[in-house]
Amino acid sequence: MTSPKKISIDAYYEGVLAGDIAMLGRAITLVESTLPTHRKLADKLIELCLPHAGKSVRIGITGVPGVGKSTFIEKFGLYLLREQHKRIAVLAVDPTSSFSKGSILGDKTRMEELSVQKEVFIRPSPSGTSLGGVARRTRESIYLCEAAGYDTILIETVGVGQSETAVHSMVDFFLLLMLSGAGDELQGIKRGIMEMADALIITKADGHNKPKAQLAAVEYRRAMHMLPPHPGGWIPETGFCSAYENSGMDKVWDIITRYLEHVQANNYFLEKRKQQAVYWLDATLEEQIRNLFFANEQVQKAYEVYKQQLLDGKITSYKAADELMQCYQKLSDTRSLNS
Amino acid sequence: MTSPKKISIDAYYEGVLAGDIAMLGRAITLVESTLPTHRKLADKLIELCLPHAGKSVRIGITGVPGVGKSTFIEKFGLYLLREQHKRIAVLAVDPTSSFSKGSILGDKTRMEELSVQKEVFIRPSPSGTSLGGVARRTRESIYLCEAAGYDTILIETVGVGQSETAVHSMVDFFLLLMLSGAGDELQGIKRGIMEMADALIITKADGHNKPKAQLAAVEYRRAMHMLPPHPGGWIPETGFCSAYENSGMDKVWDIITRYLEHVQANNYFLEKRKQQAVYWLDATLEEQIRNLFFANEQVQKAYEVYKQQLLDGKITSYKAADELMQCYQKLSDTRSLNS
Repeated sequence: MTSPKKISIDAYYEGVLAGDIAMLGRAITLVESTLPTHRKLADKLIELCLPHAGKSVRIGITGVPGVGKSTFIEKFGLYLLREQHKRIAVLAVDPTSSFSKGSILGDKTRMEELSVQKEVFIRPSPSGTSLGGVARRTRESIYLCEAAGYDTILIETVGVGQSETAVHSMVDFFLLLMLSGAGDELQGIKRGIMEMADALIITKADGHNKPKAQLAAVEYRRAMHMLPPHPGGWIPETGFCSAYENSGMDKVWDIITRYLEHVQANNYFLEKRKQQAVYWLDATLEEQIRNLFFANEQVQKAYEVYKQQLLDGKITSYKAADELMQCYQKLSDTRSLNS
Repeated sequence: MTSPKKISIDAYYEGVLAGDIAMLGRAITLVESTLPTHRKLADKLIELCLPHAGKSVRIGITGVPGVGKSTFIEKFGLYLLREQHKRIAVLAVDPTSSFSKGSILGDKTRMEELSVQKEVFIRPSPSGTSLGGVARRTRESIYLCEAAGYDTILIETVGVGQSETAVHSMVDFFLLLMLSGAGDELQGIKRGIMEMADALIITKADGHNKPKAQLAAVEYRRAMHMLPPHPGGWIPETGFCSAYENSGMDKVWDIITRYLEHVQANNYFLEKRKQQAVYWLDATLEEQIRNLFFANEQVQKAYEVYKQQLLDGKITSYKAADELMQCYQKLSDTRSLNS
């Protein structure tokens, strides 16, 4: 693979806009780079691409390991490509992923048929990055994919930890995949995720498992009905599908289509995107301010000392925070005077 | 009321430890004060009280306006006092409250019988403060109440906005009150709250409303069963009660008692309190670092400018955050050089 620095910004921009898959891949590699020179180039490229971005439907897909996310995306992606003539890009958000950076291994090998379609762009998650880093890279990759003409972007997340909240905050539609096992399927799902879902689909509804899946869909429909209302006035739907029998993909797309009609009509679609933009501004600022605070080793050490005092019941959370702020400000003043 | 500064720290401390209700009230007034001299005194007082704190059961109570929180607390408090011989303190967390500071109006007038019991301490929420401010004041008031010998602390929240998350993060047991109306009762309840509840109780289960309440309790039980598991291994329970008929209070207490046995046996009780202490350290630090960042008017103005560019689709959230960080650091350096 050519090193990012050898390509000019114009070449990147023109390649991406022309929908050149190889160039899009390189552009994402640039976005993933932590080198300051690459970062500057990436910022410039995204700035150029922004006016061409925003026109896709961004769909987040989550569920615990074993629910069959990759096989679902394989079949659903092929359905969207062949039956709905969509241009599909698949991105993954997985801060714990052990896939190597830009590798063709990982997700791609689990999406055998989809990954060989030349119209489809699949990109596994980069490894060894914080959730904030992965989120930024994914949001920026979405813009690049949109500028490259992809109109349907599937974003896969692992279904454990904080990545669902991050993905929920960058997609238009959030799909939760569930198994029909009695109760066990909830193990590993973070609390709060069900209330984020715009639809809940029971997977592996095939063979002798089908009646169980149908029953589970009904039970979840009833449960979702008891949850507080959706901010967009949408009533989350439930359904079932089988990647093995390749059934139910049309119904999932039908739910998404009706959702989009609903939220475009009441303007929640745009409202949500604006809220997401501000959310990421604030979240990024918060992370960076926090990093600045903890950049000093003495502050880090003091934090551990006060945290232990707190756990020993010798100090309140507030007093500990006050002391840490004083410690930080004293150090900032000293640093500036000595500089 | 005597001004806080006229009382010595020893008088506060001895009064609180002796369970002197008037002195406890004054100590909370001190904690609520924003004057730096009061703050220092309050910090000292809380430090003295901390070794005597922690021994109560902290119960958070939430529900939408109209669900009957105050009448529930009135009857439940009287039940705990008379049947369980508990020493009750009632605090309120309501950042939007218009009750005047330390007023005897507000909650007290809605808890006529409870408020005249000399063994019971009731304190309405101070007004005109941020959620962070109210949370700090409530957490510190809990310590003071505990040092004063109250063994059961009821913390009421308004059921809208962010205050439930705050209250959930400072109590041992979180009780959600609901009405039995079909669907309408969910209006106003924030998403995610149901998944925080350790128990869900249907109120106003009296007269012709009783069958509806019983049915709603069964439906919610089924719905809660479909939610992801409780981190303490507890299965949230549902029930119903009537403040009007004064029925069901024993069942609510029975649920809380069984919950406490469960989480004390598996050590989740202490684990959760430790997590809460660290949560409030981090949340307070975050708020203070953020305040430091936005203390500069130029940073504030720049934030508004970049936010508008973001909403206009001219910049990404990340680029905007980067620019703001640079703006902040440049200003910090200039300020230090000029000082």
